[in-house]
Amino acid sequence: MGRIVLYMWMSLDGFVTGPEDGPDQGLGIGGERLHESLVLAVGDDPATARSDDDVDALVLAAAMTTGAVLTGRRTFDHAGHWGGDHHDGVPIIVLTRSVPDAPAPGHARYVTDVREAAAAAREAAGERDVLLHGAEAARAFLRAGEIDELALQVVPVLLGQGRRLFDDMPAELVELEPIRTLDGPGTVALRYRVTRGPRVP
Amino acid sequence: MGRIVLYMWMSLDGFVTGPEDGPDQGLGIGGERLHESLVLAVGDDPATARSDDDVDALVLAAAMTTGAVLTGRRTFDHAGHWGGDHHDGVPIIVLTRSVPDAPAPGHARYVTDVREAAAAAREAAGERDVLLHGAEAARAFLRAGEIDELALQVVPVLLGQGRRLFDDMPAELVELEPIRTLDGPGTVALRYRVTRGPRVP
Repeated sequence: MGRIVLYMWMSLDGFVTGPEDGPDQGLGIGGERLHESLVLAVGDDPATARSDDDVDALVLAAAMTTGAVLTGRRTFDHAGHWGGDHHDGVPIIVLTRSVPDAPAPGHARYVTDVREAAAAAREAAGERDVLLHGAEAARAFLRAGEIDELALQVVPVLLGQGRRLFDDMPAELVELEPIRTLDGPGTVALRYRVTRGPRVP
Repeated sequence: MGRIVLYMWMSLDGFVTGPEDGPDQGLGIGGERLHESLVLAVGDDPATARSDDDVDALVLAAAMTTGAVLTGRRTFDHAGHWGGDHHDGVPIIVLTRSVPDAPAPGHARYVTDVREAAAAAREAAGERDVLLHGAEAARAFLRAGEIDELALQVVPVLLGQGRRLFDDMPAELVELEPIRTLDGPGTVALRYRVTRGPRVP
């Protein structure tokens, strides 16, 4: 069954959006800075495109080999539902408090239970990993002990304010095992295995 | 004049202490985990001492070459004033809201103004760098545009709760330039130059 891997780009001070993020401004004020290096790395402008060994490009390529996407309702809505297809038509499992009347578009479906969502994503991914994305969903799955790995790209900027990746969590140690550090000019990509979740003392 | 370099060990979720830190428990509940690798690296127990190229040992060695220490009152008090001598008898400048009646011990002195404290530390350090330590002081000097470099050791653990290094800052981008990343088994040491402070748009 697929491992659930959280992929996020965050500022050194821990923010994954600037302030006042919303449907019209998914990354908040100033938050586009967090994806600047990624956009440069994968953009199709030959003047700015970087080599294949660019850290952002490598991480994105790994994310795009996943067999399912797991996300929260906020991220899903702010991203315009990715048009119903995040990448390659893989299933998109959207964790939501209440299922909306309109059916989920494309390859997406809504699930209200954290464990059920994680299980559905793992099953859908088969032998491949699950791409988890979104701060609120990340916390829900982390609390439930359902995240296997963290792939965090630390962007060399302080935003000061915004939406934090890690917030409102219980005061319980979650031990991590470093797997790999990639040091790029635009980001430092840290990858960890979660070795001791909040549910295992 | 010496550069002011912030040296801190923090969890991946941004905490520099666990919850309920205080004079009797400087690192808070569970917070000693943040210094575990450092203690192992510099401990005098031959069974656990690591090689000279250990990341924590390297960073600590660099910190100990500084010519002055700049800190906040909380850290100073919680650390038992370092007995008045942090290392090698270099001057210790302690930022405080109000100067206590008792004189500062040893090589320490109290200063109430942020810019005056920064200037005093730079002057005291001469050709050498200034070691800045403590979360609250770090934010005060960062707001004032007085930090030149950040040396942050990211420990592979999530604490969930505690005292954050970056908190209550204004919503202003502070651009950083990566200088060096050291990838160790116990911590990843990130070092940045502050290239655009909050006061320069």
